[in-house]
Amino acid sequence: MQTLTVGLGTRSYPIHIGSGLLDRAELMQQHVPHGRVAIVTNTTIAPLYLERLQRSLRSIDTSSVSVILPDGEEYKNSETLNLVYDALLKNRCERTTPLIALGGGVIGDMTGYAAATYLRGVPYIQVPTTLLAQVDSSVGGKTGINHPLGKNMIGAFYQPKMVLADTDTLNTLPDNELAAGIAEVIKYGLIRDLEFLEWLEQNMDKLLARDTAALQYAIERSCRNKAEVVAADERESGERALLNLGHTFGHAIESGMGYGNWLHGEGVAAGTIMAADLSQRMGWLGVEQVARIRRLFERAGLPVTGPDLGVEKYFELMGLDKKVEGGRMRFVLLKEVGRAVVQADVPQQLLRQTIQACAHG
Amino acid sequence: MQTLTVGLGTRSYPIHIGSGLLDRAELMQQHVPHGRVAIVTNTTIAPLYLERLQRSLRSIDTSSVSVILPDGEEYKNSETLNLVYDALLKNRCERTTPLIALGGGVIGDMTGYAAATYLRGVPYIQVPTTLLAQVDSSVGGKTGINHPLGKNMIGAFYQPKMVLADTDTLNTLPDNELAAGIAEVIKYGLIRDLEFLEWLEQNMDKLLARDTAALQYAIERSCRNKAEVVAADERESGERALLNLGHTFGHAIESGMGYGNWLHGEGVAAGTIMAADLSQRMGWLGVEQVARIRRLFERAGLPVTGPDLGVEKYFELMGLDKKVEGGRMRFVLLKEVGRAVVQADVPQQLLRQTIQACAHG
Repeated sequence: MQTLTVGLGTRSYPIHIGSGLLDRAELMQQHVPHGRVAIVTNTTIAPLYLERLQRSLRSIDTSSVSVILPDGEEYKNSETLNLVYDALLKNRCERTTPLIALGGGVIGDMTGYAAATYLRGVPYIQVPTTLLAQVDSSVGGKTGINHPLGKNMIGAFYQPKMVLADTDTLNTLPDNELAAGIAEVIKYGLIRDLEFLEWLEQNMDKLLARDTAALQYAIERSCRNKAEVVAADERESGERALLNLGHTFGHAIESGMGYGNWLHGEGVAAGTIMAADLSQRMGWLGVEQVARIRRLFERAGLPVTGPDLGVEKYFELMGLDKKVEGGRMRFVLLKEVGRAVVQADVPQQLLRQTIQACAHG
Repeated sequence: MQTLTVGLGTRSYPIHIGSGLLDRAELMQQHVPHGRVAIVTNTTIAPLYLERLQRSLRSIDTSSVSVILPDGEEYKNSETLNLVYDALLKNRCERTTPLIALGGGVIGDMTGYAAATYLRGVPYIQVPTTLLAQVDSSVGGKTGINHPLGKNMIGAFYQPKMVLADTDTLNTLPDNELAAGIAEVIKYGLIRDLEFLEWLEQNMDKLLARDTAALQYAIERSCRNKAEVVAADERESGERALLNLGHTFGHAIESGMGYGNWLHGEGVAAGTIMAADLSQRMGWLGVEQVARIRRLFERAGLPVTGPDLGVEKYFELMGLDKKVEGGRMRFVLLKEVGRAVVQADVPQQLLRQTIQACAHG
């Protein structure tokens, strides 16, 4: 087991990464003062891992209430959230009853948001079971739900007490979800860790073959990058925005295609190519560098063109981005491979060209 | 104009109290970086004060979007909250667009909660227009909505940037709402400010006659008490719970009778008498002290007995209180007049006697 720390003063917390951690509930013990937790999971994960986690919890004399939600981004909304609140209230969960998010990014985001808002805030623990959640969404306290008009529009910054990433759970992950997670892994390389990007170029085949050591390394290095960024800028007033490389385009794709039709990581992959293309039009990247980035995503089996929503629809959806300020869209672009920046003044014409060039899938 | 400060480090903020403050939007100027705000109000307050606030904002070159909600505690729920989110998104309100809560406690709580959660948090300003909101709910950052199973069950601690209490707005307040506000004013005297309680006993008639100086003094002294408590214990891990005197019973009354049928302050009044009665059964207050407290609430025209929901219903509703810990109900009781404590071990039999004695209205 590897342990990293997200350094946030009194709200600092550990990320444990390793094999078999689902069986090690004793790691959570200090956060369960009354021997009772509420596990939030979904219909896909429950048959695979719920009983195992419950057994593990019983070994520390902890009983659990379970809330099993439908699986998919299309359920990351206020109706599903209300199912969580209803279950917590009916089971008399208290201010000291921790929630445990057992699942991927959707479960983690919704459980974290439920924890942020139930009784004005209860503790929660992330137990991510997808690569995307293990390398990105379970770390850093971004929680929330989607709104019909935009992704993650309703939410809170609310940090977990702990992240417990059992890498064994990746054995049951479908290939497309593994690839979706790799999109976020590549992101760290592109925005701030060139050495890691080069490692990914050399080890992509191992990751796709689910080589244990390679996956473990990629998760740990991704989490280290994420933890550093979050510790420096928890509420995204600066550097943290860079983690959104590809996300302005990607969220537009996800929302424009209807939640659940593109995986988040797939939207991020196509969105990152669009951001790279735009960076090239800004004169920052060369054509060969954009090609290099595209090649890496292609090797992971990820989409490298966006769907043809039409330029105006892209503009409309991106205008709702959380980074918009004073009516101006702001984009995360690449100054070079391995270094991202936030850019407010992107000529509309270049943006139009990028959408026309990259969104015809 | 009087100005107090809620001392919370970098999140400290001023409470301005005085006549004519609705016309002084310049006090808010520093929080409006892009000349745009969203005002959330209700159908009762909008015809009275919305245009005046808008005009005031125009004097600082600030335009506003308005969201006008139905009026009443029965609308403090997730459906109404969604109306706010919809309006904010449709009008492209951004992370730097402040929300302004123009109204009473319901508007303040819901607007604060919308601010806490829209785009993971935007700034907001409280402009309370009821006595209850001016002396209590607009200060301290408790935000939230009700759930069918319990009051304020969903929410967040999220501090405003400023509280702007225009005492002129009390001129249009109905008598029963003035009285409801006085219930929370009396609360401060009972839990921690005996001198203020004695002042209230001497000046109740002036308050009821809306004497400007008396109201101003009561508001300022209440806010001073509230600000001290919040600064010492923002997230209610200790002393802040004392502000809930009468609220465990009161919330049960509000929820048991159907939201909107009892005003919050009315529930608190009857609930405080129940807490005083229970304190007497615990051996802490004398009969004459309970009578003294009852007399003061009666003079304010407030209810001093709870509705006859039945003992079991009270138990069921109070079992959902946010203060319950490890399955044990916790009550705010009076050790003496002017000093409250949180008590976990209240014999069920005494509690039963209190409900039977005080809830037959």
